[in-house]
Formats: sequence, C-alpha cells, structure tokens
Amino acid sequence: MKKKTENRPDRLKIIPLGGLEQIGMNITAFEYGDSIIVVDCGLAFPEDGMLGVDLVIPDITYLKDNADKLKGFFITHGHEDHIGAIPYVFKELNVCPIYSTKLTNGLIEHKLEEHRMLTKVKRKVVKYGTHINAGDFRVEFIRTNHSIQDAAALAIYSPAGIVVHTGDFKVDYTPVYGDPIDLQRLGEIGKKGVLALMCDSTNAERPGFTASEKTVGKTIDGIFSDNNRSRIIIATFASNVDRVQQIINSAYKYGRKVCVEGRSMVNTIEIASKMGYLNVPENTLIDIEMAKNYPDEKLAIVTTGSQGESMAALSRMANGTHKKIQIKPGDEIVFSSHPIPGNEKAVSNVINDLTMRGAEIVMQDVHVSGHACAEEIKLIYSLVRPEYSVPVHGEYKHLIAQSRIAKSLGWDSDHIKIMKSGDILEIGEGYAKVTGHVHTGAIMVDGIGVGDVGNIVLRDRQKLAEDGIIIVVLTLDSASGAVLAGPDIVSRGFVYVRDSEDLMDSAKSVLNDTISSLEDRGVTDWNKIKGEIRDNLSDFVWHETQRRPMIIPIIMEV
Amino acid sequence: MKKKTENRPDRLKIIPLGGLEQIGMNITAFEYGDSIIVVDCGLAFPEDGMLGVDLVIPDITYLKDNADKLKGFFITHGHEDHIGAIPYVFKELNVCPIYSTKLTNGLIEHKLEEHRMLTKVKRKVVKYGTHINAGDFRVEFIRTNHSIQDAAALAIYSPAGIVVHTGDFKVDYTPVYGDPIDLQRLGEIGKKGVLALMCDSTNAERPGFTASEKTVGKTIDGIFSDNNRSRIIIATFASNVDRVQQIINSAYKYGRKVCVEGRSMVNTIEIASKMGYLNVPENTLIDIEMAKNYPDEKLAIVTTGSQGESMAALSRMANGTHKKIQIKPGDEIVFSSHPIPGNEKAVSNVINDLTMRGAEIVMQDVHVSGHACAEEIKLIYSLVRPEYSVPVHGEYKHLIAQSRIAKSLGWDSDHIKIMKSGDILEIGEGYAKVTGHVHTGAIMVDGIGVGDVGNIVLRDRQKLAEDGIIIVVLTLDSASGAVLAGPDIVSRGFVYVRDSEDLMDSAKSVLNDTISSLEDRGVTDWNKIKGEIRDNLSDFVWHETQRRPMIIPIIMEV
Repeated sequence: MKKKTENRPDRLKIIPLGGLEQIGMNITAFEYGDSIIVVDCGLAFPEDGMLGVDLVIPDITYLKDNADKLKGFFITHGHEDHIGAIPYVFKELNVCPIYSTKLTNGLIEHKLEEHRMLTKVKRKVVKYGTHINAGDFRVEFIRTNHSIQDAAALAIYSPAGIVVHTGDFKVDYTPVYGDPIDLQRLGEIGKKGVLALMCDSTNAERPGFTASEKTVGKTIDGIFSDNNRSRIIIATFASNVDRVQQIINSAYKYGRKVCVEGRSMVNTIEIASKMGYLNVPENTLIDIEMAKNYPDEKLAIVTTGSQGESMAALSRMANGTHKKIQIKPGDEIVFSSHPIPGNEKAVSNVINDLTMRGAEIVMQDVHVSGHACAEEIKLIYSLVRPEYSVPVHGEYKHLIAQSRIAKSLGWDSDHIKIMKSGDILEIGEGYAKVTGHVHTGAIMVDGIGVGDVGNIVLRDRQKLAEDGIIIVVLTLDSASGAVLAGPDIVSRGFVYVRDSEDLMDSAKSVLNDTISSLEDRGVTDWNKIKGEIRDNLSDFVWHETQRRPMIIPIIMEV
Repeated sequence: MKKKTENRPDRLKIIPLGGLEQIGMNITAFEYGDSIIVVDCGLAFPEDGMLGVDLVIPDITYLKDNADKLKGFFITHGHEDHIGAIPYVFKELNVCPIYSTKLTNGLIEHKLEEHRMLTKVKRKVVKYGTHINAGDFRVEFIRTNHSIQDAAALAIYSPAGIVVHTGDFKVDYTPVYGDPIDLQRLGEIGKKGVLALMCDSTNAERPGFTASEKTVGKTIDGIFSDNNRSRIIIATFASNVDRVQQIINSAYKYGRKVCVEGRSMVNTIEIASKMGYLNVPENTLIDIEMAKNYPDEKLAIVTTGSQGESMAALSRMANGTHKKIQIKPGDEIVFSSHPIPGNEKAVSNVINDLTMRGAEIVMQDVHVSGHACAEEIKLIYSLVRPEYSVPVHGEYKHLIAQSRIAKSLGWDSDHIKIMKSGDILEIGEGYAKVTGHVHTGAIMVDGIGVGDVGNIVLRDRQKLAEDGIIIVVLTLDSASGAVLAGPDIVSRGFVYVRDSEDLMDSAKSVLNDTISSLEDRGVTDWNKIKGEIRDNLSDFVWHETQRRPMIIPIIMEV
C-alpha cells in the first residue's frame, strides 16, 4: 500500500517566485488551502548581458492565476530588491493590501506616487509585535536590524506550522536608531516550535559577527576631527539613513554645514526627516548653491555614487562634469560603502579620477555590512531551532554556505532545503519536499516597455554591440525582377567608413557580382536573393576583417 | 641672465607611451641624444565601453617619427601587458632587436610565430648580469621574482645617470624555480649612485610583504592530502608556470594523473617544459580523452578560466557545455587566483554555477600576488636610494600610494615624479621636470582590423547596444520625386516585433503622414526628407517607449 505523500491539504507550500538564482528579486509565495500571502516584492538590476535594460521584475503568472487566493503582501524592509517591483506587480494584481512597518511604507508610498498609483493601492502600516490575519495565515512583524531602519522578520503562522523569515538582517546590539533585534521574541517563538527558518545567507561565508553601525560613526567622527582644514565629501548608500545621521552628527559637532547631493539621497533624507527617522539640527543642511559661501573647513558634502555609478553625483565630480562641485587637492573623500559585486572596477575608476584631481581617499573602517555573519546566523538558529532550514537571500554559494552552518549546528541534510526559483516546497511536520514547479522568470523593463525586450532582442543588441550592422538595399522592378537601384550599402558600428573606403568599395563589388550572378541564373525568389547577399557579404567581411557584423538585406519593389 | 634649463642635451628623457592611465599597455621610451631604447611593449584588454574590441595596443607615432634613433627593445618579462603589442609594433617598426631573458624570449617567439613574423624580427636572449650596449645607453638585466619566471629589472646606464626599472616584481626568498631577486646587485648599483628608480606600484596600497610562491605549494599539497576521494580541478593563470609546477608536484606525490585544459594553458606548459622551466615526471600528464579511464581520486585537472572568462574551459564546465568534463557532486575545485579588478562578478557567477552542480570550492590561501607590497617597496628604495622616484605600474591610485611610501622614507615631493602617458620627463643630476608631451593613444584591435574602430564606431555600437536600430527605406522617382515604394521599416534589437505589431503599425502611419506632408510641401531635398523622417519617428518612439534607437533613413532613386 503506497502512502500518498504529495499535495496533502494540511501542508504549507513555499514558492520563491523571483529570488535565489535571480539575485535581487525577492518575492516568495506562501500557500495554504485557499490562502496565499506574499513576502516582499523586489526588482533586480540588469546583469551584464542585458543590454539597454533598466531593471528586471519577476514574472508573476502564478500569482495572477491564483489572484482569488491572495490575502496580502508582507514587506520586510524598504530596499529596492524588496519593494521595487510593487508598482509593476500591483498594476496587474491589485487585489490585496500591502503590510509593512512605518518607514518601509513611506518608501513604498514614494514609489507608488512616482507611478501615480498612490490612491489605488491599499497599504497598512504595521507595528512590531502586531499580528495580521490573512486567510489561513497570521503574520507577526518582529524587529530586526539592517542597513535601513524599520526592518522586520516575519513569523508566519499557518495551520501546518510556524515559519520564521528573517528578511535581510544583522544583529546590532547598539543600533543608531531604535532598538536591537528582538532576540527574546525569536526565542519565545522558537520555544513554541518552528516548522521552518528562512534565514538571510548573504554573509554566511564570513566568519564572526558584523560590527555595529555605531562603529562607523566613531570612525567618521575621527575623520572630521583629523581633517579640520579640508572639505569632507562622503559617499554612501542613499537608503542608509543611520549612516547619514551619523555623518550629520559629526558635521554638526565640528561646526560644519552639510550639503546633500544626488536625487535619491535628497529624496531619502526628505522622507526620513519628515517621518522622524532622521534628526537634523536646525541650520545644518544647506543648499548646494550656498556651498560656495562656506570655506572648505566648514563644509561636508553627503553624496550618492559610492558604487561608481556613471551618472551619480560623485562620478560627475570625479570626471569634472559636476556643475556645482569641483574636486581640488586636499579634498577628503570618504567611501562609506563596499562595492557591490560587479561594481569594483567602476568604483576603482572613480577613485583614480578623484586621485588625479589631488583628492585624498578614505575607505578604511567607514562601512559595515547590513547582513549577519556566520556567528549571528548560528545565534538565530539557536533561538529559533526550526525543524527545517530553508536558506534565503544571497547567491547560490551563500545558500550553500548557510547550509554548512546549519550542518555544523547539527541539522542533517534532510532537514536543509535549498530551493530554486519556482520550486514548490511542500512542508509540514516531519515532511519537506519539493513536489513541483511553477512558471517563473525575469521580465525586463526598458524605458516604459515591460517585457517587450526578450532574448531575441537582447541577442540582436549583443550582435550589434559586438560588430555593428551592414544594411544592403536594393530596388527591383516588380515585372521583370531587374535591379532598378542599388545595391547601396550603409553601415554603423562596423568600421569608420571614411578610413575604410577601399573595404566598402570592395564590398560593393562583391554585391554587384552576387547580383549579376543571381540575374544570370534568373533567380527572383526574394529569400534566395537575400540569402546569397547575406552569405557572400558575410564571407567577404569575415575574410577581410574577421568580424561578423549583422547583415540586413532589404529589397524594395517598384 | 636666465639660465636655460630645458632640453639640455646632457639630460635623459623618459617618455611613457602607453601605460599609467591606460593600464596594461606598458611601453616606455628612454631618449638620450640620438639614441632611444624602449622598455616593454605590452597590450591592454578592452575597458567596459569598448564594445566588440579584442585588445588595445599603444599608438607609437613617436617611435615611428624617431625610428632612426631606435637602438633596441628591452623586455622585463613575458606577460601580455609587457610583450603583447610586439607583433603589431614590429609590423610598423622593425629596425632594432628585442632583448629579453630566455623564457620571455620563448614566449615572444611563440607570439611572433602566431603572427608569422618569427623570421623577420631580430631577437637576443640575455643572461642576468649581462650588459647590452645600445647607442648612448647600456642596459643590464637583474634577476627579480614575479608570477612568471625569468623576470628582470633593468639598470639603464646613460650619460645622464643610471635609471633602475624594476619591471613587475616581488621579493621571493624561496622561489619555486631559480634564485631570489638579486638584492645584492641592486645594492651595489645603488652604491654607485642612481638617478631615478622606476618601481612597481601595483601593491603599494597593501602593507607588509607578499608571501612566497612556495606557501601556495604547501596549501595545494594539503588539499591533495585531505581530498583523497574527490576529483581535483585547479584553475589558475596559464602563465604562472611555478604554480603549475607545484600542482604537478602534488598530483605526482599523491599518485594522480594530470590533465591540462584550455589552449593557453596547453601552450604555456608545452613551451615551459620544452625550455626546461617546468619539470613534469614521466607518465604524469595524460590527454583529456584518457581522463575517463581514471577514477576521480587518480585525477587532477589544471585549467584556464580562473577569471570567469566566458569562453574558458572552467566556465564551460560550470555551465555544462564542456565536451569532456562534467562537474559532479564531490568535485573539489580550487581557484588558485584572485579576480583581476573588473572580473569579480564573472568569477562569482562561475562559482555559483559550479556550486549548483554540487562541487566544493576552495579559494583560501591558494594564491599569492606577483607584486611587491609596501615593505618590499621600502626595501628596494633602501637598496637603490635613487635621487628621484618615478613610480610605475598600477593604477593612478597605486602610483600615489607608492609616492606616499617614498615620502615616508624621506624623499621629498620635488623628488617624486608621477607621470602621465606621453609626458616627457627630462632628468639629470639635480633636475627632473616634465618639459613636454608627445602624442600617445590607445589603438583598438577588432578581429584583424587595427585602428579602424575609433570613437565614432564605438559610440554607434553603444547606441545600437542600448536600444537597437530602426531602418526606414524609401524608393523615389528620380524625375518627379514621388514615392514609388516604401516607406518600409526594419528593426533589430528594439522590440520583439511579433509582440509589438501595433507599435510598428503606428510607426508606419507616422512615416506615411510625414511623407504625405513632405510631398504636399514639395520637399525634394534628401537631407531634409531624411531629417524629418528621423525626427518624427524618433519623437514617436520616445513617446511610446522612452527609448532612443538609432534611426537610419535610406532613400533610393529609380
């Protein structure tokens, strides 16, 4: 007698819809019976091959197909990779409220406003400790620490058991704003018995503990005290309000005015001040226009661009195109950040440019991560003591690193589940197995086009980027098929034509020969004509240049 | 009475022709009277914006203009950024010999052979300690250590004084092959009085000493001893023969056969073995075809791809497209390398792919740098004690880091000269000043085209990559100017046309309206017609998609 083990109604389904392989797009569905709740709704930034793509959002076909079950979106914190896809998703799926803490909700509102959707989407601000009922689920928000304030872990209560989802987190015993992570509550819930822990893996490869945000404040204070004659420019992440707070504190303490540069930095500071998350002493912030009225030693500039982003304020200062701020010898420039993987070279280029202008660069001890290292992860496991471990957040290698930590703590491999996007993890007491797969994917957003750039378009862009394009145009007589005009050749991104007249002349001869031959053989089939033009020209170009530009023959008929 | 200080014939001119800002292209001219010698002749790999470009070589206009003065090229070691431009430069400038040590010469010969230039270029193999007379110069090769064998510093004797150029170097007291750097000789020359020291800056930001290559051997040995059931795959730089030697030693010691994968790795091992720089025990190397006949625990694979290069062997193993080697759970994969700046993300992607296939990744203590850290640089300064410091090799920030070291040792700012490409540093006893500038530049090589890809072509490729292309074709009657055929629209890399029929139909209406309006107004000037087509279509496309594809109107006349 075979025991039926799959799709039992008393089990919970956990379905990551965006994250894991596609780093950044955090969105996970929890399904039980007729209820679905979703944790986070993030976007990703394009990978190297995604030419011209602005951002990437998750394919939510599964949620659309099950829209009637949706009971709520629960957002852990206000970073783009957790809230960025909300406007896009809620354009298609506006059936349930979004629950989040106060600052997170403020950032979501700002985003919805930009998309003119503020009045259309239901939002609920949630306090730590509050429980939200959502169909068969109940969700509790638990205080954590992260590189943005008001971050939350979620305890998800379902008839199948409790799942604790940490969101992105670290353990900060001395946070700049608010209280440390609520370890007591995690312990208390752990005592009740937790079915699964979904814990942040980002720093799982790093041993030890992540230092407190306050340690950065001390270093920054030291920089202000040591450089009392220089202008101080500090680049950091716009969303790290605590960091900005500490910079403002030091500037105020040492009698400096603070300028804020970069649109996202200005936005965040405005939102955070208005909501009470940032405390700016009166007459401390000044407009960038006023900066010139203050001597260097009375000025601090907080700016975006710590990742070397080519359009950000710091890059423009570095390459001399910033309209208000010219870098000069003696400027003290602080990179209060680490390069996100993939940005190392861009950051290095900006540093070289700034150095060439005579600036001094500071990078030592002016940043801490917002993610838990190995010892913090061990702490959470020891408080929550889940039956199953389901590592989340971070690249695949980081998930594996967390699974190693779990093993080192005594969890056996059967109780550690590494999921991939779209996997359906069916889970209940004594049972956890991937029993199926739903459709997921990455939808590319380019300009205002959502999803109209796919793999074919990207492949063409790649080819165009690599070797350019040659267009061959030909007008034929519709009756006789005789060539009336052309072949004309136009190229872009292939060679600099004025320097390559011989090459283009020879290419034209190749085309003329091809067409004569086609005429001699009485070929009138357009596809055949185009094919021979493409093949012969391609062979010629490869032989002469060892390049493979895209070749587009166009035939017109008169 | 004004003392003439510039262009005095008793001074030496030092002119960097490629390096410094353009990282990688190491080529420096030394000029005295009617003699010019050149140190190194390297290429660079394309930067991010150089779409489709294979490699970059220095513009040697200055050397061509002064070809009659050229007395010799002196090459410090066999890395691409020091020898890679030789075939290109010697196609244009084959007037003097190339001097280098034995392995360096072997690698240069291999390169010349690939370009079918071996018989055409004069080469001289030089032993350490030998002095070469070259016009007004005399050049001595001095043994150093680096991540390739047979590296040399150069003592350049000129009537204006002695310049010591370290090349890329480290201090390795226990090198795998050959002897430690000749510190005695550097001290001896220092005692004679050195005018200028041109010292490697690459690791000047790092404190302490670079560890000996032998420390890596110990770790690798440990990996072999600890993993006696797994297949071991080690990725490293093809040119690091000592590293390969140590891998082969460990494999042999633990009874494993060694497969070599990746074309450049096979080449290097062949050249190095033939020349006696690599000692492979008999029956240790096996062909990749034979690998399947050996159990995992009897096999080690040495491969290229440690930088995540998409076409390299390791990347193909990682993404499952390698024909001979399938990665499987339990494989032990060692990254015996650090990512070169800019490659971090690619390396990380390969690691994730390998991890997903179940492989274990080792990165700890399996690589050491080939460049001197701060303490080694201090040692060289203390031996050579030059009158002037001219930091070389590394990014601008690294040159600055070395200048800080020099200052900390007591050199004053006036005696530290940071140069930029093309600067003419006029130098003699008690005098060092940039007195002029020669034309330099980076010439892009794409396929077999040298220099036919310039900024215009790159800008077009960038635009094509970003948003694709729309081609509009139109046939006009030559007599009346009436439209006989078209407008037809063809696009590539813009939108996926089958999903965007409405958009393309509307675009066609815009074009039809434009042409009607042009006809109504009797406009026959082709430039005006093309301009209006481009503007109207561009406005329409921007409004509908917020993209700016390249728009190419083509008019034919019948």
